[in-house]
Amino acid sequence: MNRSGRSLLPKGVASFLPEEAARQRAIERKSLALFKRRGYLEVVTPTFEYLDVFSLGTADTHLDHAYKFVDRATGRMMVLRSDVTPQIARMAATLLRDRPRPLRLCYSANVFRHAEAHAGREREIFQIGAELIGAPGIDADVEAIALAIDLLRMLGLLSFKVVLGQMAFTRGVLAPFAAKPELFEKILHAVAKKKAAALDATLHPPEIDATLRRAVLSLPHLYGGQETFKAAKSFAKQPACRAGLSRLCAVYERLVQRGDAAHLGVDLGEVRGLDYYTGVVFEIFAEGVGSALGGGGRYDGLLEKFGRPAPAIGFAVDVERLQAALDHASSPAAS
Amino acid sequence: MNRSGRSLLPKGVASFLPEEAARQRAIERKSLALFKRRGYLEVVTPTFEYLDVFSLGTADTHLDHAYKFVDRATGRMMVLRSDVTPQIARMAATLLRDRPRPLRLCYSANVFRHAEAHAGREREIFQIGAELIGAPGIDADVEAIALAIDLLRMLGLLSFKVVLGQMAFTRGVLAPFAAKPELFEKILHAVAKKKAAALDATLHPPEIDATLRRAVLSLPHLYGGQETFKAAKSFAKQPACRAGLSRLCAVYERLVQRGDAAHLGVDLGEVRGLDYYTGVVFEIFAEGVGSALGGGGRYDGLLEKFGRPAPAIGFAVDVERLQAALDHASSPAAS
Repeated sequence: MNRSGRSLLPKGVASFLPEEAARQRAIERKSLALFKRRGYLEVVTPTFEYLDVFSLGTADTHLDHAYKFVDRATGRMMVLRSDVTPQIARMAATLLRDRPRPLRLCYSANVFRHAEAHAGREREIFQIGAELIGAPGIDADVEAIALAIDLLRMLGLLSFKVVLGQMAFTRGVLAPFAAKPELFEKILHAVAKKKAAALDATLHPPEIDATLRRAVLSLPHLYGGQETFKAAKSFAKQPACRAGLSRLCAVYERLVQRGDAAHLGVDLGEVRGLDYYTGVVFEIFAEGVGSALGGGGRYDGLLEKFGRPAPAIGFAVDVERLQAALDHASSPAAS
Repeated sequence: MNRSGRSLLPKGVASFLPEEAARQRAIERKSLALFKRRGYLEVVTPTFEYLDVFSLGTADTHLDHAYKFVDRATGRMMVLRSDVTPQIARMAATLLRDRPRPLRLCYSANVFRHAEAHAGREREIFQIGAELIGAPGIDADVEAIALAIDLLRMLGLLSFKVVLGQMAFTRGVLAPFAAKPELFEKILHAVAKKKAAALDATLHPPEIDATLRRAVLSLPHLYGGQETFKAAKSFAKQPACRAGLSRLCAVYERLVQRGDAAHLGVDLGEVRGLDYYTGVVFEIFAEGVGSALGGGGRYDGLLEKFGRPAPAIGFAVDVERLQAALDHASSPAAS
């Protein structure tokens, strides 16, 4: 998409000419229609709101990248939404608290994030997303992931990967470090970047148990296909860890039965969103796009922060990256 | 619409539950479809941008109500768009400068304005709008106003008024005061609020010519139907003033020929947007809604500020006020 504004515009804000706007509108229309057919009702959330309220449902690391300003009327800090899910969680827990569960909601919205130093990060990001609230089981996990897969297929994307992770497993393996925030952060960083050597060095202190060290060192390598589950099993000592792994395995199998095998991958070293997600997580990748097109996961602890606990799972897709993937797939260079 | 957020949300930001969101989406879909049938292509503009660039096309009084913040990446001031028209004008003058004229563009976007002290002003306002760029004539004036009328009719609003004004007339009458900004502001304020007594007091100084005084004092009274044009004629001394009046009269007649007589009104004391509009202006009113549902006008000087002069006319409608008017019209209390 053409985001140039002849230096008049900040890099990474939206500026879509008719052709680009029409394509984006078509994606939105088709996506919302699919969501509707599956029972997901569209809602609209505020573009900005009070920082203290928004931050209830948002990790500090995410807030660091959010746009903030002082509200003239109240003197309170405001934030441009950097994520829609916490807003939907709040809506479900407050205005929609008396609606029957499960509650299926969806949205098309722009979110705002400070551009990171490296290229390719945008400031104004158009997302479409869906949230399934009040459904705790494997069925809901499968429904959410299948909806994401069906969405991409329906939009004409044929070649893409949905990489599954399990926060209950990762959290279980890393649990012994939770009491040491500094070390925990270092480990998380090394695992996230799949830096095995750095991870090894971090885990050097002799007071770290050898079995534990082996488990953590395995994380950057626990990715691939269905065989990953077998490899991970020996590191799943905790009951929650074991249960999470076997649940993810069951979700994977259900998706295979649906015919999604070609789209599936596993990455048990996925630690992004550890402060937010509680169970199954997934990220969507496609050729020609360097970053994830979208992703989501189970966030069973989020609605509680707004006074009405409920299990929930959802996902969002970045419309411009999706468009880039579609462009790449239809370009002559693509195989 | 339900904008309550249980005190968690700032007053006046968007929070639409499924039923409200569906109605708003339906209005948007139907409106964009009508615009498309008439040849207007949708574009998307940035939610925020550099203040110095945005302010090129925006009056200071409007900027006072805009949300501003410092961009961390560049240290420059940013502004949340408070109006889409200057953004479209810039797009037309830059990215779309080589497209054939006239250029017909439309949008669905939210704008942001600091809530005013009195109730009813919202902070996040959803607008649909259309801009006709590169067409200088009466045909274009009629096309834009007729499009607004057809839009409201198509959406099911039967009883509404489109009140026409003419900035060339108002500017002509007030021209002798342009060199005295303080007095000019006082006069504008009194005319805008239709405060005849205050206006009279302001025009007291004996150096003010009696004919001029009579013309200015007439402004708050120059509203009503087609007869207003006759009443105004004697005050239209300047050629530009005369030409503007006779053009507005012609536009009015063309709209009557179209069958719009029941929807038309005239207000030659309309001075809002004097710093922005250059010709025909209009505001849309409906029963049950205290403020204008929308409005627009000719802004022949705006594109020039972005380096590529072109005449233009456009309008925007406030989707929530429109919804309120539709609700009022369908309520049992409405006649």
